[in-house]
Amino acid sequence: MLMRPDRKAIETIVRMALMEDAPWGDVTSQFLLPADARISAQLVAREKGVLCGEDIFTTAMSMTGEVAIEFAVRDGEHFAKGDVIAVVGGQAQIVLQAERVALNFIQRLSGIATVTAQYVAETAGTKARIVDTRKTTPGLRLLERYAVRCGGGHNHRFSLSDAVMAKDNHLAVLTHSGTGNLTEQLRSGFARLPHTTHVEVEVDRLDQIEAILAAGVDTIMLDNFTIEDLRAGVQQVAGRALVEASGSVRLDRVREISATGVDVISVGALTHSARALDLGLDYRPIAAT
Amino acid sequence: MLMRPDRKAIETIVRMALMEDAPWGDVTSQFLLPADARISAQLVAREKGVLCGEDIFTTAMSMTGEVAIEFAVRDGEHFAKGDVIAVVGGQAQIVLQAERVALNFIQRLSGIATVTAQYVAETAGTKARIVDTRKTTPGLRLLERYAVRCGGGHNHRFSLSDAVMAKDNHLAVLTHSGTGNLTEQLRSGFARLPHTTHVEVEVDRLDQIEAILAAGVDTIMLDNFTIEDLRAGVQQVAGRALVEASGSVRLDRVREISATGVDVISVGALTHSARALDLGLDYRPIAAT
Amino acid sequence: MLMRPDRKAIETIVRMALMEDAPWGDVTSQFLLPADARISAQLVAREKGVLCGEDIFTTAMSMTGEVAIEFAVRDGEHFAKGDVIAVVGGQAQIVLQAERVALNFIQRLSGIATVTAQYVAETAGTKARIVDTRKTTPGLRLLERYAVRCGGGHNHRFSLSDAVMAKDNHLAVLTHSGTGNLTEQLRSGFARLPHTTHVEVEVDRLDQIEAILAAGVDTIMLDNFTIEDLRAGVQQVAGRALVEASGSVRLDRVREISATGVDVISVGALTHSARALDLGLDYRPIAAT
Amino acid sequence: MLMRPDRKAIETIVRMALMEDAPWGDVTSQFLLPADARISAQLVAREKGVLCGEDIFTTAMSMTGEVAIEFAVRDGEHFAKGDVIAVVGGQAQIVLQAERVALNFIQRLSGIATVTAQYVAETAGTKARIVDTRKTTPGLRLLERYAVRCGGGHNHRFSLSDAVMAKDNHLAVLTHSGTGNLTEQLRSGFARLPHTTHVEVEVDRLDQIEAILAAGVDTIMLDNFTIEDLRAGVQQVAGRALVEASGSVRLDRVREISATGVDVISVGALTHSARALDLGLDYRPIAAT
Amino acid sequence: MLMRPDRKAIETIVRMALMEDAPWGDVTSQFLLPADARISAQLVAREKGVLCGEDIFTTAMSMTGEVAIEFAVRDGEHFAKGDVIAVVGGQAQIVLQAERVALNFIQRLSGIATVTAQYVAETAGTKARIVDTRKTTPGLRLLERYAVRCGGGHNHRFSLSDAVMAKDNHLAVLTHSGTGNLTEQLRSGFARLPHTTHVEVEVDRLDQIEAILAAGVDTIMLDNFTIEDLRAGVQQVAGRALVEASGSVRLDRVREISATGVDVISVGALTHSARALDLGLDYRPIAAT
Amino acid sequence: MLMRPDRKAIETIVRMALMEDAPWGDVTSQFLLPADARISAQLVAREKGVLCGEDIFTTAMSMTGEVAIEFAVRDGEHFAKGDVIAVVGGQAQIVLQAERVALNFIQRLSGIATVTAQYVAETAGTKARIVDTRKTTPGLRLLERYAVRCGGGHNHRFSLSDAVMAKDNHLAVLTHSGTGNLTEQLRSGFARLPHTTHVEVEVDRLDQIEAILAAGVDTIMLDNFTIEDLRAGVQQVAGRALVEASGSVRLDRVREISATGVDVISVGALTHSARALDLGLDYRPIAAT
Repeated sequence: MLMRPDRKAIETIVRMALMEDAPWGDVTSQFLLPADARISAQLVAREKGVLCGEDIFTTAMSMTGEVAIEFAVRDGEHFAKGDVIAVVGGQAQIVLQAERVALNFIQRLSGIATVTAQYVAETAGTKARIVDTRKTTPGLRLLERYAVRCGGGHNHRFSLSDAVMAKDNHLAVLTHSGTGNLTEQLRSGFARLPHTTHVEVEVDRLDQIEAILAAGVDTIMLDNFTIEDLRAGVQQVAGRALVEASGSVRLDRVREISATGVDVISVGALTHSARALDLGLDYRPIAAT
Repeated sequence: MLMRPDRKAIETIVRMALMEDAPWGDVTSQFLLPADARISAQLVAREKGVLCGEDIFTTAMSMTGEVAIEFAVRDGEHFAKGDVIAVVGGQAQIVLQAERVALNFIQRLSGIATVTAQYVAETAGTKARIVDTRKTTPGLRLLERYAVRCGGGHNHRFSLSDAVMAKDNHLAVLTHSGTGNLTEQLRSGFARLPHTTHVEVEVDRLDQIEAILAAGVDTIMLDNFTIEDLRAGVQQVAGRALVEASGSVRLDRVREISATGVDVISVGALTHSARALDLGLDYRPIAAT
Repeated sequence: MLMRPDRKAIETIVRMALMEDAPWGDVTSQFLLPADARISAQLVAREKGVLCGEDIFTTAMSMTGEVAIEFAVRDGEHFAKGDVIAVVGGQAQIVLQAERVALNFIQRLSGIATVTAQYVAETAGTKARIVDTRKTTPGLRLLERYAVRCGGGHNHRFSLSDAVMAKDNHLAVLTHSGTGNLTEQLRSGFARLPHTTHVEVEVDRLDQIEAILAAGVDTIMLDNFTIEDLRAGVQQVAGRALVEASGSVRLDRVREISATGVDVISVGALTHSARALDLGLDYRPIAAT
Repeated sequence: MLMRPDRKAIETIVRMALMEDAPWGDVTSQFLLPADARISAQLVAREKGVLCGEDIFTTAMSMTGEVAIEFAVRDGEHFAKGDVIAVVGGQAQIVLQAERVALNFIQRLSGIATVTAQYVAETAGTKARIVDTRKTTPGLRLLERYAVRCGGGHNHRFSLSDAVMAKDNHLAVLTHSGTGNLTEQLRSGFARLPHTTHVEVEVDRLDQIEAILAAGVDTIMLDNFTIEDLRAGVQQVAGRALVEASGSVRLDRVREISATGVDVISVGALTHSARALDLGLDYRPIAAT
Repeated sequence: MLMRPDRKAIETIVRMALMEDAPWGDVTSQFLLPADARISAQLVAREKGVLCGEDIFTTAMSMTGEVAIEFAVRDGEHFAKGDVIAVVGGQAQIVLQAERVALNFIQRLSGIATVTAQYVAETAGTKARIVDTRKTTPGLRLLERYAVRCGGGHNHRFSLSDAVMAKDNHLAVLTHSGTGNLTEQLRSGFARLPHTTHVEVEVDRLDQIEAILAAGVDTIMLDNFTIEDLRAGVQQVAGRALVEASGSVRLDRVREISATGVDVISVGALTHSARALDLGLDYRPIAAT
Repeated sequence: MLMRPDRKAIETIVRMALMEDAPWGDVTSQFLLPADARISAQLVAREKGVLCGEDIFTTAMSMTGEVAIEFAVRDGEHFAKGDVIAVVGGQAQIVLQAERVALNFIQRLSGIATVTAQYVAETAGTKARIVDTRKTTPGLRLLERYAVRCGGGHNHRFSLSDAVMAKDNHLAVLTHSGTGNLTEQLRSGFARLPHTTHVEVEVDRLDQIEAILAAGVDTIMLDNFTIEDLRAGVQQVAGRALVEASGSVRLDRVREISATGVDVISVGALTHSARALDLGLDYRPIAAT
């Protein structure tokens, strides 16, 4: 029961990508290939991973022309090196024109899903969930967040508009400019928020926690804490809010972070540094009938 | 004399990114911070690298509100860990709202520039140039190609529309469907192209080269060749076309590739797998005057 | 400290409205009036109310040409019948072309702000807040929600994307299609949500409350409850969630609803049925200098 | 033979509304409901009225996913409280996601059609037609004018571009700035207009009429006239132009206005203050087959 | 007192044209020219004509970068071969990048203005006005109609939406499908139109005129009539409607058409076949200061 | 094997044109014609020519409503005066609404194709190809270049972005501002270009040729040369680059130009001054069934 991106949104993004890649057509296919030549291809995994991008891949092909596509692996499923992920067939001019855009999307998104799955696997047996951040590619956040879900991760807030996240700088401004104490300032700001707005505040030190909790928050983020301090933080919060660990979380450290009892671990690297997964299209021309 | 992206194009991309990140405003800054609070910040390098993104960073801030920005490092210049790249000052609500989008762009683009510079450094003393591919982020090709130039690399064709690149699949379709021989088929297709269209053809084996050259090409791409075969290919082409080496080029192998005498080395990893460079904004609230 | 709509968003909406109202210019002003004729005007309240629309009014004028505007009443402030809200001056062709669009916005938004202020006044002395719904004008939600804030109201969720609101129909589908019991089904769905997503569930009867609370919700909505049942519902929930009263809330009934102890009262009529407030521009030609 | 809005225009407006209401999907339906759950619903009239919005309602559902819709009442037809207007069936996730947008449109437009029909009924037996104004919702003029037609009303000019309407302010500017007399100034401006441009001029007093008629106008608008003066104005114009009555026309006064012999009565309230009609979707889950 | 196109509309069209002409920059200027090189240029008439395009030319330059422009000839004015129309100065990279787009607009529009002026000159001393048709370039109607006005011509209806023009095919459909007689059918259709909609009907023969006039029309169009029949038509209509002559009107025949007493002569050739006027930019590099 | 414009691009252009021509519907067809009236029509050639615009014509009809279209002549084929090019059938309201836009496109594009074919015919027996320029209609370059191909011509570079074309002004700036000699300046600029970028340089005199060739160019353009000088230029270049003749090439002079041995002749008149070809729709109402 994965929540899939809206098809109108996908179409808008894919149309933009196709126009970027062929603003006035594909001179290679159109000038060189016979219009009636057909082709069959297999989308093959050159390395193992987790799939993300069925609909996007299909849309990239279909917006270029009529192409038949059958996926053997579905979004969110694991595959091994050498697996055939999908079979594609259609007019050679169309398939070869759409190939790069379709691959650019599915490789990038599957790269994110695959990395996410690695982080998620490391947290097995704990209650910690792996979540994304706003460090996504401009224009692709909707898709990259979907990729995180395909990898078994969860999403953080979508944007600046749908949850409060007060960071060190916000607190510094308040401290610097305010007249009252921080707890009062936060409480008064929170009171004006929509009642559906989740409130999260970041702290850098354990001794900040009580003042923040007193203002009434839903999640407290412990930023760049040591493992020991994370554990102390969880104990101090004691269920009065969710606890999120954050700050340059790496794969080799995520297991011990998850063991501290935190509820949420946010990982910028899921999206800002995931590399494209190596998927390729292997072609086979089709005899004309 | 770097060719910079058009400001209208930058504005379009940045506007889209800002709307994606705050579709109905930044609830944190707007509900919590006093409207008259001001802030100063330094854009600091948390690791060394090559800068790309001055204009984009500035545009992201300026489209959100009035912000003063001074860059100490310019696009294409190297910086060391700890260097102050820019100084930013303005209304706290504005700067904190625009921060993430501005950073997402400049971190990603500087990541690409930095990786490119590493590849370029490896080819020092040879005539080989490092070029990008079409494996770019959908919607950001214009910017990512600029990042490659900032790193000292060169650009390949921009899109499917502005140069012919006949790959193995195109040749297979021609071979399979055509009646004449391959050289004739290519020659007849090339004859209909605009006279300004560069023609490049990919080969997988040395024994394909003569047939391709006979059709009249500007560049011949040797795909996934061994070092030895690259050297043999260069000798066989003997100046009758430019020679491009391609296929999973890695940093640790690029020097020996460049030493084979090829003219061009295309590297998908410059864009499809570059990680965001670690740049951060360090804040300092300003006393009201 | 009102959160104002983003200026890029305002510009997009106003540009659309101006193009709709004068797709190829204003034939009256342009064919009849001398280009150098200037005009001065007062925006006058023909009835009392609460203002909303300063920036939108100004943008509508400024995107048409150069116009000087000074507001004497600010967004969120009350004014009396006959008050001068703003003074406008500029080229007659420009001001008369932009007038209708500028008024259409400010009259509609001030109408919403004014009605909201009436509801808010009725709840004085209680903890209940008046909030809007998704029953807004297509395309104008951002502005209409701002109008609600100007009137002293609060906002509910912005869209289907940023909070869960499970209504009777969602529960009916779950009951009908599911295998487990409702509490379990909800709990399992909620577990997959982003941790920042607020969860609200609607109930029609008091006896539904415990099953819903057991699933873990942030807000419970009592839909179309009698005053007596609202009071009973508040007691039963007993602080375990926020309580929202909903369902055809009218101005003459809102005080007694607010007295039941509910936290939130959502009122569709704030936006779906607010009439335009009667504001007008009174002109005075200016002698040429 | 109603002139229906263009389907491309409808699609553009509906797409915008759907993206506004679910920028990154419907978290309630998608996280809670099984993808294969289906639903049936009836669009029921909670009060009597005149329908407007068939195509818009259908488009809102269809752009979200596959939904079957059958309308029993057609645009422009009257219905009674309790009538079933349409039957809807499809995937529960889709129908529940599209519901609010579809309703927002059809409720608002049917509200306009219903009010219009009330005004039109009051003018029965006279030659006066009820027409709309430019006091429409920004972005929805095309639809709201259609709603007026569904209610039996007629349309005024669409925009500033397609007919001249010289109001008191235009006349004041001309008087103030011109050298010649008003009749001459108007005549010379009208002479430059496209020959297809209808010319209408507003007067505030009976003694202005002759000077305006002398300039050659198609319609003369009597603004805020008493019943007695309207009657005198009609007699004075004596068929030399159409006569339009205007100015805060209310339902309880429109009959006597129409009895004065005017040709056209323009009513801003048709659009600027119509409330949404109470239409609702009643659901019934469908057993899986 | 020319009605100029809206600046927002001009910006939209020019932006599109600039992006079409340099989707990712001007490789010639940017790769070859020093960024600090400045240039001065004169826009010179290589043939005589009437100017149209000041604002568009200026916008094309200004949206590319900072350029100073001074026009010596204004829109609507005649110029001789060799005249300097404008002086341009700025960064060489900018001016040379924008040159072609700026010229494409001003040459095409001045071509239309010039041809229009020739037709208008031929009708001197008659009451006939020269008007355009809907045979304009897709996307440029707003500008091309302005060019017709610059040439001294008038505009016909802008689009299908703002005036009725019933042609032979409409009449044929009515005759074929209707039950009543044509006059009745037309009258009943006209009765439902907005009262501001101008009604024009085309006839092919003199004997159609009475039936059409009886339905009540504002303009009657005599399509492809001989000079003799035009004169007869004018006499028959006798002021009961405006008379428009239409149908392959050529410059060498327009004088005798205008002498028949018709009110309006519509000329498709003004826009569908006007050639670009020969205007060029003559450059002079500027010594650096 | 004509390269056809992308269907997404066609749809975007046609949608814009349809909205321009009927922003709020076709009042003539919709208010006058019965909705069930059907019509049949033939697209007839009123003069001979070469066709271009099948897909665009069909798209204009289909985006308006359901219309059946069968083309008897295909893009690129010659037709005689009186030939039936296509047969169209559908709802009268739809066909008559779409007619003008569909014709505007196909007449203009066929006009270009026809003129191009005349130029191409004049060069028969020579190796010279006729190519277009950037003097195209803003917004229609993609279509107009396709029209040139339909007429048997070839395309030049699409835009400023995909090939270098250094003209007299670029050379003047370099000469004026540079320190080194021109050959060196050009060579150093070319070295930074993408290796796929074609380089063309314009010369005005024979004595410039050697310095340009020495910089390494792909094409040399001889601008406004006499026939004699063209012949001398071809001999001097002697195969070291392609030779393009340019500058006010007229139909009556193109044969002798082509006989000089140049490879390419660029003709601005193909697009900047082509008149619309006279194609018309002849209608026949259909009896209802």
